[in-house]
Amino acid sequence: MQLKIRLLSSVLFFFLSTSSVQAFEPFLPLPDRPPIPPDNPLTDAKILLGKTLFFDARLSASTRNNCNSCHNIMAGGDDGRAQSLAEQGQLTQRSAPTLWNSAFQTVQFWDGRAGSLEAAVDEHLKDVQISGLTEAQLVARIAGIKAYRQMFVHAYGADATVDLKGISQALASFIRTLVTTGSPFDRYLQGDRQAISAQAQAGFSEFIEVGCASCHFWVNLSGPVPGLAFRMGEGFYELFPNHPGSDEERRYQLSADLGRYYVTNDVTDKRMWRVPVLRNIAVTAPYFHNGSVMSLEEAIRVMAKTQLRLDLNQQQLGRIAAFLRTLTGEYPIITMPHLPSE
Amino acid sequence: MQLKIRLLSSVLFFFLSTSSVQAFEPFLPLPDRPPIPPDNPLTDAKILLGKTLFFDARLSASTRNNCNSCHNIMAGGDDGRAQSLAEQGQLTQRSAPTLWNSAFQTVQFWDGRAGSLEAAVDEHLKDVQISGLTEAQLVARIAGIKAYRQMFVHAYGADATVDLKGISQALASFIRTLVTTGSPFDRYLQGDRQAISAQAQAGFSEFIEVGCASCHFWVNLSGPVPGLAFRMGEGFYELFPNHPGSDEERRYQLSADLGRYYVTNDVTDKRMWRVPVLRNIAVTAPYFHNGSVMSLEEAIRVMAKTQLRLDLNQQQLGRIAAFLRTLTGEYPIITMPHLPSE
Repeated sequence: MQLKIRLLSSVLFFFLSTSSVQAFEPFLPLPDRPPIPPDNPLTDAKILLGKTLFFDARLSASTRNNCNSCHNIMAGGDDGRAQSLAEQGQLTQRSAPTLWNSAFQTVQFWDGRAGSLEAAVDEHLKDVQISGLTEAQLVARIAGIKAYRQMFVHAYGADATVDLKGISQALASFIRTLVTTGSPFDRYLQGDRQAISAQAQAGFSEFIEVGCASCHFWVNLSGPVPGLAFRMGEGFYELFPNHPGSDEERRYQLSADLGRYYVTNDVTDKRMWRVPVLRNIAVTAPYFHNGSVMSLEEAIRVMAKTQLRLDLNQQQLGRIAAFLRTLTGEYPIITMPHLPSE
Repeated sequence: MQLKIRLLSSVLFFFLSTSSVQAFEPFLPLPDRPPIPPDNPLTDAKILLGKTLFFDARLSASTRNNCNSCHNIMAGGDDGRAQSLAEQGQLTQRSAPTLWNSAFQTVQFWDGRAGSLEAAVDEHLKDVQISGLTEAQLVARIAGIKAYRQMFVHAYGADATVDLKGISQALASFIRTLVTTGSPFDRYLQGDRQAISAQAQAGFSEFIEVGCASCHFWVNLSGPVPGLAFRMGEGFYELFPNHPGSDEERRYQLSADLGRYYVTNDVTDKRMWRVPVLRNIAVTAPYFHNGSVMSLEEAIRVMAKTQLRLDLNQQQLGRIAAFLRTLTGEYPIITMPHLPSE
């Protein structure tokens, strides 16, 4: 069931605005591990298989693009583009979201159309625009490589054969390891009051007071996470723009894409979007579903205007931006996979 | 000075064919480290900077291609294509050679036109077809990123500023760490007689006896290495096809590209090529400067025919291929760099 979030937001806004900063349960350090679905237990064999596939461009028709082409985990987990370049060089519909910490989301994609990482990966691999391959072609490519057949046996057992489900489960398993703990904000929440500057602390208070935290709360600052009020597959959505008719809406064409409506055909879903993750936001420009805004301060200004009908001044923007910059976490050390040749 | 190699080959052929396999000094295990030029000492700071730049697609105009796009070090160090895809998607002149162990070569590129890795990197970065950027544009991009400015200071000292020389030196430093020791053949040379099969051992003898080893000898099986008879910058070239007029020459268009002649305009350099590295040859198909041959056995057959005027039978091809497959080394563990956002 899709929850209509504005009601929930109001409740949370009330809760947040009447509590002291220190008491905010809604802001929690990022756990080391995201929730693991019971039907895809996390194993080293699946993680290694997934990491190898993630960098293997044979998952694209051209053998030129891999998962990392658009979701660059050597950087912010995205590609820094307004829209990504699909298999034939055409622009994708929306800006690639970061994969870092995406496993804490209850739904995937900007419109929340995938209820799990497995479903999101599965859809991408079967998308002729994205991979350029049919399912049969893609599976045949991987199944044709002896080392992959062996890795499937290690990951799924002696009788395992290469199939799309196994590929998707392995990729989802690897993505679940993409967690950036240790951000200054996390250290602040854990009691190190010096971990973030006085300006960032003031920005954190302002972030709550002006209303950003009505949607951007809990471990990923994107609303409920699995096990915290929401179950996996339940989406946390918000209307964007919430207050229509602004200059910002026109300038950045924020209403051209109807978001979740394209998934449900429910008119109440027009311009409803999954609340985006704010972790690592300082390193994942450009912003919004259409990547129309390059600077963090401008993104904050637009959000305040379109969502809260507020005109923030430069000091406020600077403080909130300083806070958001404390959300950049530490990247885990990842060794490069070795892509098998045969 | 370019050495005319057919004379040297004849000398070596005589030497090789009159010695026993065990006594062959010309075949040596790959050292851990290649020669380091005195004007670019290898340091951890330069290696880290080079590794980061190697994966940074901001070194291409489109921000879509990095060094790894064509020289994939998660695989055989190349891209598995007959010709690579340049910045605008156009085909490059020749097949991308592997970067693994390339630091043992005395010259770089198929035609040996670069006398050092630094020169090769420098040429690529300034090549509008390859990077799509002018030197000034490229340097400005990197210099505009604070973290890179800091890495330059770490690598080159407090007064260092970002320039193409520093970028090339760092990339060359990283490439010098791309060494695959521990191949079965190396273990065999080090005394483990079980490291390669009886068939591969027979193939090794055959490789010498039929004449392959006349050019493909020493640590990289590509002729002299720096410090071993040759100095860095001195190229070891061979005519290919050596015996013109074969069916193979026509079928694979082996003579269409005049090789080193385009560099020197010396008619005696027509169809002269740097002798390619045979290490990891089994995982770096397709073969030859134009990538015209996909299978290892066919590449061996073509070489025997065009270079030695020999028709090898299936058993001989199988044995030599078995030997060449023992040249696949162990890839070092490389952690992923983190590409700075600002």
